[in-house]
Amino acid sequence: MLPQIFSAVAISRVSVWRSYAEISRFVRAAGILNQNRPRNIQYHLGRQCLGNKRTFTSSRITLNHSAPSSTSEILEDFKKSFEFPRLTHEVSALERESPGKLVVLHGYLGTRKDISKHMSFLPLQSKDLSCSVQLISFAHSGDGQDKPAHSKLKTLNSHTPVVIRGVLKARKPAKGDFASGIKMINNVEVDLIDIQPLNKFPKDIIVTSETFFPPEQRHLQIRTNKEIRDALLFRAKVADICRQQLREEEFLEIETPLLFKSTPEGAREFLVPTRTKGLAYALPQSPQQYKQILMASGIPKYFQIARCFRDEDHRADRQPEFTQIDLEMSFAKGEDVMQQIETILRRLWISMIDEKIPESNFPRMSYHDAMSQYGSDKPDLRLGMEIHRVGHLLPVDLIGKIGPLLDPVVEVMNLSVSDNPQESRKFISNFMDSPEAAPFLNNPEGQPGIFVYDLKQPLQGLQPFGFEAAEHVEEILNLKHGDLVVLQARKKAPFAGGSTLIGNLRLALHKAAVATKYIPAPKGFKFLWITDFPLFSPTNGTDPGQGGTAGISSTHHPFTAPKSPEDVDLLLTDPLAVKAEHYDIVVNGVELGGGSRRVHDAKVQEYILRDVLKMSEERLQDFRHLLDVLRAGCPPHAGIALGFDRLIAVMMGRESVRDVIAFPKSGKGEDLLVKAPNLLTQEQLETYHLELKE
Amino acid sequence: MLPQIFSAVAISRVSVWRSYAEISRFVRAAGILNQNRPRNIQYHLGRQCLGNKRTFTSSRITLNHSAPSSTSEILEDFKKSFEFPRLTHEVSALERESPGKLVVLHGYLGTRKDISKHMSFLPLQSKDLSCSVQLISFAHSGDGQDKPAHSKLKTLNSHTPVVIRGVLKARKPAKGDFASGIKMINNVEVDLIDIQPLNKFPKDIIVTSETFFPPEQRHLQIRTNKEIRDALLFRAKVADICRQQLREEEFLEIETPLLFKSTPEGAREFLVPTRTKGLAYALPQSPQQYKQILMASGIPKYFQIARCFRDEDHRADRQPEFTQIDLEMSFAKGEDVMQQIETILRRLWISMIDEKIPESNFPRMSYHDAMSQYGSDKPDLRLGMEIHRVGHLLPVDLIGKIGPLLDPVVEVMNLSVSDNPQESRKFISNFMDSPEAAPFLNNPEGQPGIFVYDLKQPLQGLQPFGFEAAEHVEEILNLKHGDLVVLQARKKAPFAGGSTLIGNLRLALHKAAVATKYIPAPKGFKFLWITDFPLFSPTNGTDPGQGGTAGISSTHHPFTAPKSPEDVDLLLTDPLAVKAEHYDIVVNGVELGGGSRRVHDAKVQEYILRDVLKMSEERLQDFRHLLDVLRAGCPPHAGIALGFDRLIAVMMGRESVRDVIAFPKSGKGEDLLVKAPNLLTQEQLETYHLELKE
Repeated sequence: MLPQIFSAVAISRVSVWRSYAEISRFVRAAGILNQNRPRNIQYHLGRQCLGNKRTFTSSRITLNHSAPSSTSEILEDFKKSFEFPRLTHEVSALERESPGKLVVLHGYLGTRKDISKHMSFLPLQSKDLSCSVQLISFAHSGDGQDKPAHSKLKTLNSHTPVVIRGVLKARKPAKGDFASGIKMINNVEVDLIDIQPLNKFPKDIIVTSETFFPPEQRHLQIRTNKEIRDALLFRAKVADICRQQLREEEFLEIETPLLFKSTPEGAREFLVPTRTKGLAYALPQSPQQYKQILMASGIPKYFQIARCFRDEDHRADRQPEFTQIDLEMSFAKGEDVMQQIETILRRLWISMIDEKIPESNFPRMSYHDAMSQYGSDKPDLRLGMEIHRVGHLLPVDLIGKIGPLLDPVVEVMNLSVSDNPQESRKFISNFMDSPEAAPFLNNPEGQPGIFVYDLKQPLQGLQPFGFEAAEHVEEILNLKHGDLVVLQARKKAPFAGGSTLIGNLRLALHKAAVATKYIPAPKGFKFLWITDFPLFSPTNGTDPGQGGTAGISSTHHPFTAPKSPEDVDLLLTDPLAVKAEHYDIVVNGVELGGGSRRVHDAKVQEYILRDVLKMSEERLQDFRHLLDVLRAGCPPHAGIALGFDRLIAVMMGRESVRDVIAFPKSGKGEDLLVKAPNLLTQEQLETYHLELKE
Repeated sequence: MLPQIFSAVAISRVSVWRSYAEISRFVRAAGILNQNRPRNIQYHLGRQCLGNKRTFTSSRITLNHSAPSSTSEILEDFKKSFEFPRLTHEVSALERESPGKLVVLHGYLGTRKDISKHMSFLPLQSKDLSCSVQLISFAHSGDGQDKPAHSKLKTLNSHTPVVIRGVLKARKPAKGDFASGIKMINNVEVDLIDIQPLNKFPKDIIVTSETFFPPEQRHLQIRTNKEIRDALLFRAKVADICRQQLREEEFLEIETPLLFKSTPEGAREFLVPTRTKGLAYALPQSPQQYKQILMASGIPKYFQIARCFRDEDHRADRQPEFTQIDLEMSFAKGEDVMQQIETILRRLWISMIDEKIPESNFPRMSYHDAMSQYGSDKPDLRLGMEIHRVGHLLPVDLIGKIGPLLDPVVEVMNLSVSDNPQESRKFISNFMDSPEAAPFLNNPEGQPGIFVYDLKQPLQGLQPFGFEAAEHVEEILNLKHGDLVVLQARKKAPFAGGSTLIGNLRLALHKAAVATKYIPAPKGFKFLWITDFPLFSPTNGTDPGQGGTAGISSTHHPFTAPKSPEDVDLLLTDPLAVKAEHYDIVVNGVELGGGSRRVHDAKVQEYILRDVLKMSEERLQDFRHLLDVLRAGCPPHAGIALGFDRLIAVMMGRESVRDVIAFPKSGKGEDLLVKAPNLLTQEQLETYHLELKE
């Protein structure tokens, strides 16, 4: 059974993928049967070949699916595409020219229509594939002479890069062909005089409007999918606007090193061995330490659109390398940084997607409130569905039914999918049968208790709540006929991490209701700041943390400052109670980025590392440079980093950051097009004094 | 003896360095003698501590040279600098304000002058250290009350970051203090009401106008050296202008991956092991392959200000990571790229340093001509001193005297240092005694033969040339009384590499003559393109090349296209004779960058890799992605990369790229401030399935 909460888009992709897989199998099978198949085809099958050693017995050229050519044929062919004339016009500039003009054009051939043996039409697409002009080709010229260009044209496939020589002719405005997002030149067409192909477009690459190329052929994805090209253009423009805004406010863009060193900042770093045995650089997880050094160096406002690296297990939509807009300000607190970011986001939204974000400060919500009201530290406020605590009112036997915990926190929320209780029941039962429900059914703290609010039922369907709780829930949730009422228990403990189970359930139910069209998809943008995170969290088994022995780790990184003087005092007595001056900027349930005020006092920073986190002296010394730098009269400072890939994806409404990166890595961290990473050779290992561990 | 050809600047640095070393030794010695020295001082001694395990017996805070503070003192201290008010004005904005205004300022204290016990002056420097305003502090207010701010002020060292509250007062314009490059606010001063230090500036960091901080204290270099801060600002502006120009011409800035894979492109790559045993990424030596993929993906004009990496032996002024302005154009030849770069350089020069570069095309010179006329593939045309071949005219015994070669090429050049032959003799004999002369004296192909052209001598001092050759040399060199005439032999062989010995001697002599003030330093900028490089060079022992077995390697990289159809034919018959469509842009003897037209035909690219370079099938498959991409109808394309660090250094007239990079690596590839690279831990090695080779 297909997961029903997939959006229509996701489902249609699955089916296209399936047909790609079928084609791929077909090609493979054909290859196995037909020993004369061109050898190169195996390289199209992607990852599984990676690192294999292949042996070849001849050096014949076998790239093309046609019969192998001799070397001199290859070189002769090459020479034909080698010399070519400059263009006189870009295709887009033709609409401003008059008929009769002789033009030389560069571009790609579109699909040819042969009107007769003697006459063909076809579009010539501009180099950037954004617009096209119609070419007309005749077999004979006006005086009856043969035009060799016509027969040459007929040998060329669509997508062939060409140089065209021709004469502009007026044309009746055709129906604009915007279906493919390509602008059609409407007032002139080009009477073909000569054509020169600049390369071949092979017959075995089939491009139709249905073709979906796999990541192994990212180049064909970019070439055939306007959405990807648009994303790259959008991305470049956003970077421009950010730079412009920050420059206007006297931020200085400074490049910081990528060959840094390993420090226990919090995430696992990629390492870069050097030829000095045992020494390695590390790729920075962010420019954090260098930008703090700049704050101590008399640079009051720094920014950088910076590449960062984390060797994390590949969680959903995370890339091992990513880009962030990174900034830091000295003599500043978090407040200054937050205002700065609001300014940038307002400007981006209005200039790129024509959305006006109100001038008032973005709303703020504490981590604790976000977790209790929305079960998430990045709540999507558009969804409503606020969560409430109701445990104290519920009958003990109801609590016992929704989970094994003795004294749990019980929370409740509602979702209106229909004013027909039947429909609501259908929706929820489909949802609970779907794979999406598994984490909630398997929750060791208890499954959700789901009720349909039904005015025709005793106690409106909330009988198990008992009268008092039912009335309370009716009131706080403002229930309507047909509403789903969801109860969920959890262990009584302070919030930790990014979400609660009921928070996840809230998102999953809403997504399913949208996918099945019970409710409309949420629209618009709701920004908010999440603040007051705990400075430290209990050490867990998954995040590397700082490797201290105190049983706690920095929730974000060890340079984050406490929120208030009271929090400074708590460092000494109750570190887990210390609130951080950390702030996350969230829009529509997506964390765009986060930042903090930093500890600018060397002694306090050292105290946190050594006495609060209880890092070993050895690891503490990895931060000695930072302590030395803070010590040299470093002013207070604060900063932030916005995830640039995610920012673009959110602004464009794209599902994945992969849709807005030219060459994204797969979920396994691979570049499937170039086949990276690849096998280390013995020689490389020796150069770096390394060997593979048995 | 000090090397005499060092510029005055270089010499003064050497002496400052020496005193730094002395201070450092003193500190170290004092530390050894005085067991009560603050423990942290060892961290200031830099590299030698790297990777050492240090053991500490207490966790007392010992950062400060004053007596150790208790934890609660530390936290109390911190709280004092924790809350601070926002500024009302930037220091630079004060000159537009009227006397009487109450202001809150952020900045750094300058040096205090105590006029009396009751009155002090001192400058407050702006946050970006670009301007300052005078503070006046009185011990008592007008009504005789004590002002506690005055005594607080007296406890604070220069360079302390502070918040100031005060009242503006009119002042008599002081003499502008531009000596330090800092703008002085001249119409108002600030009567101090209150002052809050935001951190401490420790007494043991001594900053005078003579202090030269070592690279270990890059933060103090940046903070105290306006030239470095200016370079960072200049650098950011140049990047902006490049982006603006390229955007106007519809280039699209696209970020390409830094986690790439190892391919035998030509340079040694840094490797990044993954947690999948035996697999590694490689950091790209340039975005070359990705940008070619973009050319096949329908992106007609790409650019990127890109970080690149090469694990090379650290040659003079090379960094293991560096930045380049990287661009590529499809449907383009080298000519298009060269014009593009000329446009950018003209705009940069006029807008950043007010130098107008002529509108005519930059001059071009073939590699062969540059090597024979200037002995360099990046000649500084400002120096004159053209080299000529004279061997055929010289007496055999003269040839025998200048070297052991049997049938050498003999070349000659002249240098006018003085019209007094005595002076010329003095200059050259000092030069030949200097360490700079060693490579020429030890040249196995023969030492230079140097003559002074002296109208008072028989045959004007050129007697050993014989009459015919002397006359010829007089004519071609247009000799003047006192000129030095330099003969040099070399092996008869095609040019290879970047320079000849006589080319190096030309530079060394010119530099020495400038340093000793015999001739003025060259001025202005002379741009030229070097073209017609050989596509292949004989494999040498030093460059990794492509690892083919043909005994030849690509001179630049294996994607470079031949220059003409004739060169395409020569691929088959005489690869070493093939000229490349490669072009280097050179200014004043510095190679700013290089580029080429690329092979856009998959079959020809494969032929070059397999049959010309004779790469193994296994290595060839590392390029399979590129071949697949070219095969998909890739149009002709060409591009270039400019070294961004070097561009900035040249524009600013700085000696080294280190002067224009915020955090440069040392000659050994180390970041001496943060102490990178550092030791791999056992845990890290295990994570990546590696161990150190015994």
